[in-house]
Amino acid sequence: MDETFGQRLAERVRDQGGLCVGIDPSSATLHEWDRPDTVEGLEYFARALVELAIEEVAMIKPQVAYFERFGSKGYAVLELVLSEARDAGLLTIADAKRGDIGSTNSGYAQAWLGENSSLRADAVTVSPFLGVGSMADFFSLAQRSSRGVFVLAATSNSEGRTVQRAHTDSGERIEELILRSIREFNQRDEGLGSVGAVVGATRDDISFEWESMSGPFLVPGVGAQGATVAQVARMFERCAKGTVVVPISRGITQAGPSKSALRDAMRRFGDEVRDSF
Amino acid sequence: MDETFGQRLAERVRDQGGLCVGIDPSSATLHEWDRPDTVEGLEYFARALVELAIEEVAMIKPQVAYFERFGSKGYAVLELVLSEARDAGLLTIADAKRGDIGSTNSGYAQAWLGENSSLRADAVTVSPFLGVGSMADFFSLAQRSSRGVFVLAATSNSEGRTVQRAHTDSGERIEELILRSIREFNQRDEGLGSVGAVVGATRDDISFEWESMSGPFLVPGVGAQGATVAQVARMFERCAKGTVVVPISRGITQAGPSKSALRDAMRRFGDEVRDSF
Repeated sequence: MDETFGQRLAERVRDQGGLCVGIDPSSATLHEWDRPDTVEGLEYFARALVELAIEEVAMIKPQVAYFERFGSKGYAVLELVLSEARDAGLLTIADAKRGDIGSTNSGYAQAWLGENSSLRADAVTVSPFLGVGSMADFFSLAQRSSRGVFVLAATSNSEGRTVQRAHTDSGERIEELILRSIREFNQRDEGLGSVGAVVGATRDDISFEWESMSGPFLVPGVGAQGATVAQVARMFERCAKGTVVVPISRGITQAGPSKSALRDAMRRFGDEVRDSF
Repeated sequence: MDETFGQRLAERVRDQGGLCVGIDPSSATLHEWDRPDTVEGLEYFARALVELAIEEVAMIKPQVAYFERFGSKGYAVLELVLSEARDAGLLTIADAKRGDIGSTNSGYAQAWLGENSSLRADAVTVSPFLGVGSMADFFSLAQRSSRGVFVLAATSNSEGRTVQRAHTDSGERIEELILRSIREFNQRDEGLGSVGAVVGATRDDISFEWESMSGPFLVPGVGAQGATVAQVARMFERCAKGTVVVPISRGITQAGPSKSALRDAMRRFGDEVRDSF
């Protein structure tokens, strides 16, 4: 039996640390790098980051929205990025936030987790507005293909709280319901499971026993968005080593386009994350 | 000043009726049509439907998940479909259910609503798990480009109810909060606004004055999913003519691959929708 995504991830994080380089080729970032806001600019930016990430970290997280801006050509660049990362043994998290009804989710699951898909990544982020139950095809394909899913649970952005902190008829908050559902799914696996949660770095207000999750956490919000690595470390201090992934995008890319400055930024954040967990 | 998406849509629906042909090239559907589950099968299926839709209806709704299964090549087929539809004057709704934090949503908005994007459609569906407030860039780009957005509000699938019917701290249900937010946004425009709601055909349990929305409704769930056109007509009977879009996918495609049978199915549903509203 192959290892689960959670087990593979935990090994890599214990070896190399939990920093994940976010690849967010927005118009604004390409402009800062003096690159045109075109598919050529996109390709330059993404490949420069991957090349450095291969040497410095365990994981990358391309933000799919910024590739999708360029349609099929943007997706071709994303395929190239995923394939270069895969060949070099980098773990990849496709930040796609996909989510629809169950039958449609099987299409998205094929795209991001399917064995023969050109877009296959080690994990994909998903959004449960249509219910955690609608995510079943993501979970089962992830389990079969030793890949992973990160489900949005409690995000950092203030607008998200209205939805995520709403109460179900049984009095539970939506974010707690999602975390609990993930935990239940993961308990089917030995060790760290295939389904993780996306929890914003500022969401230490939630009453949930993080250490009971049996799955990994993807914790955005550190760096340019204001939270600190120390804050994340405190929040998850009782979790097993190798459980927490800290994606940093702007905090690193704003050091660019100089490769040596980018490398320094990756090392600085990499050390900080490694020393804190 | 250009017409809003809502105004353009209302004119088309009044002229040609509210049937929207859903283009859902799932593995199962391609198999039913005796086509391979490949990008060639995808292209055959999608173009056959568009060709007939051009003659018979006002709108198509490609389900993006089923194109995404084939990565950049699937997106190239989607671009072709959108461009053929555009050239023939068909309205297009990209069923993408995109949704992320505000800055990322600007990337998705560029992809689907941007003036020069190869994926531009007349409207795109979005998912508000990160808050209605995070949708601002979709709304503003739609307004600027005379395009539209359909926000998921109350879906038909049973799993979605836990999230959508949860209560905010002020006691409002999430689905009602979303509908109210859309209405407030639309009140900025004269006539039918650019922002619509996705409301499942079985969701006549909601207490909301549909006729106050000032925006269109996209109402899935008719046909293979069990709801009837009459049910939808009753639900929205107080709304202005031209407000309601009824997407039907399986109900039509299961008549295929025979072109004459597909045409008959489009006409039958088209007449039924036209006669009911």
